[in-house]
Amino acid sequence: MRIVVTGAGGFVGRQVVHDLLAQGHAVVGLDSAAAGIPAGATIVAGDLGDPAVRQRALADGIDALIHLATVPGGAAEADPVASRRINVDAMYDLLQEASAAQPGLRVVFASSIAVLGDPLPDHVDDATPINPRMIYGGHKAMMEQAVAMLSNRGVIDGVTVRLPGILARPKGPSGLKSAFMSDLFHALRAGERFTCPVSAEGRIWAQSLACCADNLIHALQVDAALLPPGRAMTLPAQRVAMGALAAEVARQCGADPALVQYHPDAALEATFAAQPSLDTPAADRAGFAHDGTLEQLVQSALATLE
Amino acid sequence: MRIVVTGAGGFVGRQVVHDLLAQGHAVVGLDSAAAGIPAGATIVAGDLGDPAVRQRALADGIDALIHLATVPGGAAEADPVASRRINVDAMYDLLQEASAAQPGLRVVFASSIAVLGDPLPDHVDDATPINPRMIYGGHKAMMEQAVAMLSNRGVIDGVTVRLPGILARPKGPSGLKSAFMSDLFHALRAGERFTCPVSAEGRIWAQSLACCADNLIHALQVDAALLPPGRAMTLPAQRVAMGALAAEVARQCGADPALVQYHPDAALEATFAAQPSLDTPAADRAGFAHDGTLEQLVQSALATLE
Repeated sequence: MRIVVTGAGGFVGRQVVHDLLAQGHAVVGLDSAAAGIPAGATIVAGDLGDPAVRQRALADGIDALIHLATVPGGAAEADPVASRRINVDAMYDLLQEASAAQPGLRVVFASSIAVLGDPLPDHVDDATPINPRMIYGGHKAMMEQAVAMLSNRGVIDGVTVRLPGILARPKGPSGLKSAFMSDLFHALRAGERFTCPVSAEGRIWAQSLACCADNLIHALQVDAALLPPGRAMTLPAQRVAMGALAAEVARQCGADPALVQYHPDAALEATFAAQPSLDTPAADRAGFAHDGTLEQLVQSALATLE
Repeated sequence: MRIVVTGAGGFVGRQVVHDLLAQGHAVVGLDSAAAGIPAGATIVAGDLGDPAVRQRALADGIDALIHLATVPGGAAEADPVASRRINVDAMYDLLQEASAAQPGLRVVFASSIAVLGDPLPDHVDDATPINPRMIYGGHKAMMEQAVAMLSNRGVIDGVTVRLPGILARPKGPSGLKSAFMSDLFHALRAGERFTCPVSAEGRIWAQSLACCADNLIHALQVDAALLPPGRAMTLPAQRVAMGALAAEVARQCGADPALVQYHPDAALEATFAAQPSLDTPAADRAGFAHDGTLEQLVQSALATLE
C-alpha cells in the first residue's frame, strides 16, 4: 500500500512511518520540514495549507491516509487563525483531494481528548458528550464531524482516534506544557534529580509511543463494521498516578526514586494530571489497546528512547 | 435590544422578524434579497459570504444574533462547495465578527435534525449520537461544535436548536421536497383534491411556524444554566401521522377528507415520513415546547396562512 502520512516528522509520525516502512509499505511523508521524516519515505516538505504541497503528496497515488499534522493545543490557543487554517480548512481540503485521488480510501484521523472538554468531566466513556473549550479541541471536534459525514457518504472510510498522553518524547525543548511526563524518563535514566510539576497522586492517561503507533496502524486496517456511529473513538489508555509512574521508571532504570520531588503547579495539575476514570468499550471492541500493565508501558517507553 | 437576524427574508425568518418587531426590538434583517424582509427592520441585502455585507449588518451594533441563513439540504447536496462557503466558513466568520462587536453575545443557531443521521435512528433522544450523512447535516454538525467551543470560552453565549418540520409554508414553488406537508394545507383550504406522496401512516415531526418562532425567541432569552453541555438541543416536536394531520386540516377547513389520496413514493417516505419516536428532555427543561395538540398545531399553521 502507498500510505500518505502527514505530520511525518513529528514525535508520533516518525514512529508510524518507521513501522510502516518496516512492514514493507510505500510511505509518503508530509511535514513542514524534511529533517524529521525517516529515510525510506518519499519526503514532501511544505505548508499543509498550500494546495501545491498537498498535490505533491498525492501525485504518485494514495491508498490510505494517516493524518497526524496539526497545530497543537498551546499553539492553537495562541494563534486561533493558524489553527483554523490548518486544523480545519487544510484538513477538509486534504480529505477532498485524497478522496478524489482514491474514492473511499481509509483515512485515520488523530483527534484529541480535548474534544471532550477542558477540564474533562468526572468520568469519560463513549456516552460522554463532545464539549470542547480549547481552540484545538473545538477544531478537532469540527473535523470529527466532517470525517463522520464523509464516511457516511462513502467519500472516505474514516477512523477517528482520540489520543491520550504519549510516552516518552525525545529529550529537548518541545514547547509542550505536558513535556514533564517525558522529562521524568530522561532525568531518571541519567540518574539526575527531577522536580515534578504535578503531585504524586496526579493521574495521567498514557500509552507508550510504540503502542500509539500500533493503534494508528491498526486503524488503517480495522473493519469499518466494528466502528461506532460517527467513526470516532477515545483510545484506551492506562490511568497512572505520577508517583507510581516515577517509581516504576526508577526501578527499571536502577535509579533512586528519591531523585523525584513534587512541587505541584495548580494549572498543570488541573490540565494534565487530573484525568478521570476512563472506559473505552467502542475502541476495545474495535481491537484498540493500551500497553497492558504499568511495567510494559514503562518498558516500551524506555525502549523507544534507546 | 438590537437583534441581527440572518435569513430574515425566509419562511421562518420573516415570522421571527415580525414577532421581534412587535415586541419592540430593533431588528437588522440580513438576506440575499431585500424582498422578503418585513418592513420595519433595517434591511441588509447581500451575500452572507461577503465580509462587507456582514460588516453592514453589524455596523450599528448588535446585542444578539439569530442565525437562520443557510444553504438548505437539497441545495447543499447539489452544491457542497456553496454549503461549505455559507454553512461553515461564512457562519464561522460571522460568529467571530459579531463577538468582536459584542463579546459574549447571545447567538441562536438554527441547526437541523439532519445532524442525527439520514435515515434517522429508530429512536431519538438527547443521547442519540451525532452521525450526519447529508452535506447539510455534516456542515451543521461542524458548526454545532464551533458554537459549543466558542460558548465554553465565553466568546459567544450560544444556543443551538435543531428544528423539525415547520408548518405551513406559503403556497408556491419552494424547491423543497418536503413541500407536500404544506401543500396539503393549501389544497384542503381551497377544497381541492390532493395526492399525498407519502402514506397515511407516515409519521412527521412538526411544529407550527408560530411555535417555531416562539422557540427561537425563547432561545434568545433562556438562561444559559439551563442548557446542556455543548449547547445543542433537538427541539420538541409532535410526531404526527399524515392521515391524522389530513383529517384534522380537513375538519378545521370544513373540507371533505376524501379529497386526500395517498400514493407513497418510497424515497420521500423514507426521508420525510418515517420519523421515529422522539424525546427531548434537555429542550423541555430549558422551556422549549411544541404546539401541544394536533388541533392546536393545525389551528396555528392555518392562522399564519391567512
